[in-house]
Amino acid sequence: MEELNIKGALAKKASVILGVKSESEKNELLRLIAKRLVEKTEYILAENLKDIEKGKSNNMSDGLLDRLRLTDARIRDIAEGVSQIADLPDPIGQVIEEFSRPNGLEIKKVRVPLGVIGIIYEARPNVTADAFALCLKSGNAVILRGGKEAINSNKALVSVMKEAISEMNFPEGTLSLVENTDRESAKALMTLNEYLDVIIPRGGAGLIRSVVENATVPAIQTGTGNCHIYVDKTADIEMAKNIVINAKTSRPSVCNAEEKLLVHRDIAKDFLPVIIPALTEKDVEILGDEKVNDLYNYIKIATNEEWYEEFLSLKIGIKIVENTEEAIEHINKYGSLHSEAIVTSSQEDADKFLKEVDAAAVYVNASTRFTDGFEFGFGGEIGISTQKLHARGPMGLRELTSTKYRIYGNGQIR
Amino acid sequence: MEELNIKGALAKKASVILGVKSESEKNELLRLIAKRLVEKTEYILAENLKDIEKGKSNNMSDGLLDRLRLTDARIRDIAEGVSQIADLPDPIGQVIEEFSRPNGLEIKKVRVPLGVIGIIYEARPNVTADAFALCLKSGNAVILRGGKEAINSNKALVSVMKEAISEMNFPEGTLSLVENTDRESAKALMTLNEYLDVIIPRGGAGLIRSVVENATVPAIQTGTGNCHIYVDKTADIEMAKNIVINAKTSRPSVCNAEEKLLVHRDIAKDFLPVIIPALTEKDVEILGDEKVNDLYNYIKIATNEEWYEEFLSLKIGIKIVENTEEAIEHINKYGSLHSEAIVTSSQEDADKFLKEVDAAAVYVNASTRFTDGFEFGFGGEIGISTQKLHARGPMGLRELTSTKYRIYGNGQIR
Repeated sequence: MEELNIKGALAKKASVILGVKSESEKNELLRLIAKRLVEKTEYILAENLKDIEKGKSNNMSDGLLDRLRLTDARIRDIAEGVSQIADLPDPIGQVIEEFSRPNGLEIKKVRVPLGVIGIIYEARPNVTADAFALCLKSGNAVILRGGKEAINSNKALVSVMKEAISEMNFPEGTLSLVENTDRESAKALMTLNEYLDVIIPRGGAGLIRSVVENATVPAIQTGTGNCHIYVDKTADIEMAKNIVINAKTSRPSVCNAEEKLLVHRDIAKDFLPVIIPALTEKDVEILGDEKVNDLYNYIKIATNEEWYEEFLSLKIGIKIVENTEEAIEHINKYGSLHSEAIVTSSQEDADKFLKEVDAAAVYVNASTRFTDGFEFGFGGEIGISTQKLHARGPMGLRELTSTKYRIYGNGQIR
Repeated sequence: MEELNIKGALAKKASVILGVKSESEKNELLRLIAKRLVEKTEYILAENLKDIEKGKSNNMSDGLLDRLRLTDARIRDIAEGVSQIADLPDPIGQVIEEFSRPNGLEIKKVRVPLGVIGIIYEARPNVTADAFALCLKSGNAVILRGGKEAINSNKALVSVMKEAISEMNFPEGTLSLVENTDRESAKALMTLNEYLDVIIPRGGAGLIRSVVENATVPAIQTGTGNCHIYVDKTADIEMAKNIVINAKTSRPSVCNAEEKLLVHRDIAKDFLPVIIPALTEKDVEILGDEKVNDLYNYIKIATNEEWYEEFLSLKIGIKIVENTEEAIEHINKYGSLHSEAIVTSSQEDADKFLKEVDAAAVYVNASTRFTDGFEFGFGGEIGISTQKLHARGPMGLRELTSTKYRIYGNGQIR
């Protein structure tokens, strides 16, 4: 695809320059961009309105329209986010390890940018500024490919940012937006191996699957969260209730929200009469296993597929388990390796759960909702990795870097 | 593919148990395997002979036959290698970071196994024991898929190792060998997403390309090395000669061997008359650029493709460059991100080269041949990563691990 080859070559060229830019130069650019975004609010809103109107005429849901919509306040928030990334420490150039060998070679492992990052995302224009800022601060060139629903908004944001990029004499390929938004352009970006070092999808399960199946560029899977909370027999019932209600209902559409509740059979008779009305009061639709259905015959039995499903809505599956082992086994089978929690007073069960549950983030007595770059104190987040290679859990600036060995000799041969 | 689904499920099940095995249990198994390999030498050699005879009747080259051949001494070396891996520190369970948040959450980032690792390799049976030992020590289950040329040798080695695995009560899925060695079985392993966490190819450029193109499991690219040595104008000529001859001729078939020599034009008239006869004396075939051809008209001009090529033989391409910038630009264009060296007396040129050359290992005044897990002091090596995601450069035990966040709360909700 011609557009991608041109943008890829420019990005690759830019990445060499970005890799050696000083922290202060990068910060200055980020602060200028934040300023310009606010100054150009009117223009950005006018372009965003085109997307909103097109969305309406295509019968886009209210939820999607809300994600797509920009406002004065949202643009200020976007700009504020870009400024905050300027305030984060620059990871590039850090010496991570340093050692010498018996032959006198001095070896330093230093942090370097990944190079050129491709990001494929859906209808949220805030990602455009946010992802760019994180990539720039970590010394990477970026090629963005947003959804067609937000193309006018994205073009407007990118043109404002590119003006600042050129004003500060950063190379043209620092930031590119793929303007062709058909499916083929996403696939072409995933296979742009000549220029891209990594591809990161940010979006729903369908997008992630497409990247896994089609990408030849190394990819980082993000975001799918079929998260469980296991209420052990020694759990504090009030704490368990608060955690379950928070994890399920505080923001049901996000990946760290709870989807399934596992209850130890010895506490089920005490806990279910507390949690079921509490969930119902919050309009949560409840599915159960056979045992739950035996106790509450109005609760429908979940299908095998539903135990695997990330509902992303006010819906929960409840299962009664024999013991912590069965809870762990169920999670390792049906979970998505994202965030899993145990509520317990037993150190032994907590330790077992922490050790044996295979997930990016495993909690004792806390809500799964904390799996997030800001909540972890990373100051930003490009996504939450649910794979084990490269990065696992919330990915901040450091996860957008690679390393390189610098070796100092005085004539050593082998 | 039925065989892979069965082996995948067993490996996945085993990985949960392996992840919590103690260091001493793993070491005991490794030492038992080392012992058994030596004890069963006669059986292994008899099976290896079948591969050798088949290779001969298929007109396999002497080089390949040599890689395939086992001897008493080679089996002792393999066993010794397995023992040495038992002596390395266990990376699993290490707390890499520990921090607390204002809300009281205590977050620990700990090292965990990757889970199930698939390894696809070619005709070297030593990889069978070596790769298994590294994967086991880092708590991973492994599925090996070796080349068809070595299938009898691999089956013999695996059966000896599996006997020890069962004797020590390790789970059956700890180690599996794919017995079907057609192309389809390699492709099926690369797409076994349900069970595999990562796939690592060890072999030539064709295998690596096939993995990049076909794998849906996260992969680590290893091994292709189109390595350059750049002799700067301030280089010590004797040192430069020693490094070039060592890097090119000490073992031309390996990935950290030199393939190209770049010479600053100001030193060319002094250095070429030294290095060209020295290379010729070692039977190295020389290609050049136009400028080299102008000076030595018997030296053929390399094609554009040859500047990209990893010769893996006694062949070298020599190019005269204007300055360090041009050397860096050439390397970043034609190199394979593996190992690159500058020979110089200038701190400034050294720093520029170290900073701007995009490769896993960048050397000042040393041979590229040191890019190796043993030479770096890692005690072993599963391969040399030439990608930027997850691991870069020699991969030892630590590079066969992932991380996981363990979060301790007392009822925190968001």
